[in-house]
Amino acid sequence: MSRVGIVGAGQLGRMMALAGYPLNIRCHFLDRSADAPAAQVAPILLGGLEDPAKLRQLAHGSDVLTFDWENVPAAALKKLRGQVTIRPSVRSLSVSQDRLLEKRLFSQLRIPVAPHAAINSLADLVRAGRELGPHGVLKTRRLGYDGKGQAVIRTVREQSPAWETLRGTPLIYERFMPFSHEVSLVAVRAPRGEIRFYPLTRNTHQGGILRLSIAPHIDPGLEGRARTYMRRVLKALGYVGVMAIEFFVVDGKLIANEMAPRVHNSGHWTIEGCPSSQFENHLRAICALPLGATHALGHAAMINFIGKMPDPKRLLQIEGLAFHDYGKQPRPARKLGHCTILSATAALRDRALKRALKQIQWA
Amino acid sequence: MSRVGIVGAGQLGRMMALAGYPLNIRCHFLDRSADAPAAQVAPILLGGLEDPAKLRQLAHGSDVLTFDWENVPAAALKKLRGQVTIRPSVRSLSVSQDRLLEKRLFSQLRIPVAPHAAINSLADLVRAGRELGPHGVLKTRRLGYDGKGQAVIRTVREQSPAWETLRGTPLIYERFMPFSHEVSLVAVRAPRGEIRFYPLTRNTHQGGILRLSIAPHIDPGLEGRARTYMRRVLKALGYVGVMAIEFFVVDGKLIANEMAPRVHNSGHWTIEGCPSSQFENHLRAICALPLGATHALGHAAMINFIGKMPDPKRLLQIEGLAFHDYGKQPRPARKLGHCTILSATAALRDRALKRALKQIQWA
Repeated sequence: MSRVGIVGAGQLGRMMALAGYPLNIRCHFLDRSADAPAAQVAPILLGGLEDPAKLRQLAHGSDVLTFDWENVPAAALKKLRGQVTIRPSVRSLSVSQDRLLEKRLFSQLRIPVAPHAAINSLADLVRAGRELGPHGVLKTRRLGYDGKGQAVIRTVREQSPAWETLRGTPLIYERFMPFSHEVSLVAVRAPRGEIRFYPLTRNTHQGGILRLSIAPHIDPGLEGRARTYMRRVLKALGYVGVMAIEFFVVDGKLIANEMAPRVHNSGHWTIEGCPSSQFENHLRAICALPLGATHALGHAAMINFIGKMPDPKRLLQIEGLAFHDYGKQPRPARKLGHCTILSATAALRDRALKRALKQIQWA
Repeated sequence: MSRVGIVGAGQLGRMMALAGYPLNIRCHFLDRSADAPAAQVAPILLGGLEDPAKLRQLAHGSDVLTFDWENVPAAALKKLRGQVTIRPSVRSLSVSQDRLLEKRLFSQLRIPVAPHAAINSLADLVRAGRELGPHGVLKTRRLGYDGKGQAVIRTVREQSPAWETLRGTPLIYERFMPFSHEVSLVAVRAPRGEIRFYPLTRNTHQGGILRLSIAPHIDPGLEGRARTYMRRVLKALGYVGVMAIEFFVVDGKLIANEMAPRVHNSGHWTIEGCPSSQFENHLRAICALPLGATHALGHAAMINFIGKMPDPKRLLQIEGLAFHDYGKQPRPARKLGHCTILSATAALRDRALKRALKQIQWA
């Protein structure tokens, strides 16, 4: 039996705990909320994610420590490094917590990114608008997710209001990318360096929140390139576990948008769609077990339930649909669950997807 | 959210609880052991399976009650019928608890069974040996499983020792069936009568314990017949939930051996091998949700871990292998876990199976 301590007890941790049980990997959690999604399926330690005493307690009962949220305070984790193995490493976490460091890493590794600039004043923003173009996005460097901490700027006039909304924390300005679509790659790396890639996935966002993933997204050229970039990042960080990188596709080329040092929403379809899910493979990797197969078993679509849960009785009538309820209270823009369709052909998948979308309202 | 109370917290209950969480179906259990397999993944009420107060308490917190063991005392459950919905019905449970009643039901439904006789004395056994042939099996009518409560009789001389071993409880003598192989069919029936069948599965037993299942076992003639028989049983009992029937194949014909009013060891491969597993479909049926798809996603093999756990590090090197540890203490002849191989072709499955069998010792 391996004992895995997980900092954060959201839906990602919940699905990890459920993937762990068959392998006799027992996950336990640290989180503020006794009713957090993972706390409904596994033991939880109640406390703040940065509480040193609680973190030590979690580490004490764990063979390996991981996290289900990339905004876990890296400094707090760093103090545990002598006590317990932390996978992925605190360095991987730190880099991905800061959009500027992340972009610098990508650039060092010759992975294309959007033209960008660090912003610490309105003057910086005005200069960046002049140099990079006035159409762009102003983002907080840290603690952004699901579209939070971002302001779209279309004209020079919108620079000042955007600055006023986000000022007070280090920012980054990125030139708007006229992308045709968004894809992501999820991969897993074992302690001894073996890497496995899940099939490329095509994603649709609205309001900064992932709505829909389609996999496999068949484009061998893009997929090969994405794998090359992913391999560079994983090696550079000496990474262990599952990582996701999101890309914009601009003129048929990949522009890296961001990386997540954890299992990722665009990999949820792998629960039904691959022999070993991203959750299982993250656990296998951090527990130094052999990695599982990552090929697609069919054609999958994943739809997020946002703000409002659909009626399971209606959705479950759709053949080959799997339903995932995270056990959360509904709230606008909150990810409450998802469903995955797995079909033998892309055409069948698309037909089922159309039926499923009729049952789902995003709130 | 549906709350399902499960009497018995073995590995079947454990896999049911894990299948329930994504659907926000919360299982809780009644069992004597705080360390029972299901108690490691879901809440448990400690107590005897026949304890009226504990059963009432379990029922009180449940929308529907089910069981993970067919030897749950039917009389104790019967008293709860006004208080909670019990699925499958207590009648289905009662019939399957008694080998003689079970065979009578099969016969009434024109389902072939082995020639047999009720045995209440050595004289009965001698007479049965004369009428049905001296090669047969003497079995307790009740409480037998995994080969327990059985004595094989090869000659008239072995009648008396067999009688001495098993006397003291109602018995049944069955003529030995010279079967070429064993198959089982797992099916699920919804409250409104819809039935779905999993693919026919071929099973290998040793010492009365299932070792190996191969699915789909492709034999359309046999499968059609098995479905016809299953349909008759499910309808006759007004059954709700998953049922399994085990058959001997004798001269290309099916002889019903026994039925199980629950999820079944020969259906474990459906976790990876079908869109909706037997565990998920049992929960869907008893919670009146639409049934899930039951077709095979590939070619599967399931191997039981008996008496001794294999090394997961070695087994997990086999591509497409899923590992299931029930979290039990090793003990000879005890089912501790299983693994399932899922491959794109039967040849690939057979090759992986051969590799896996080399890693597994049965104790």
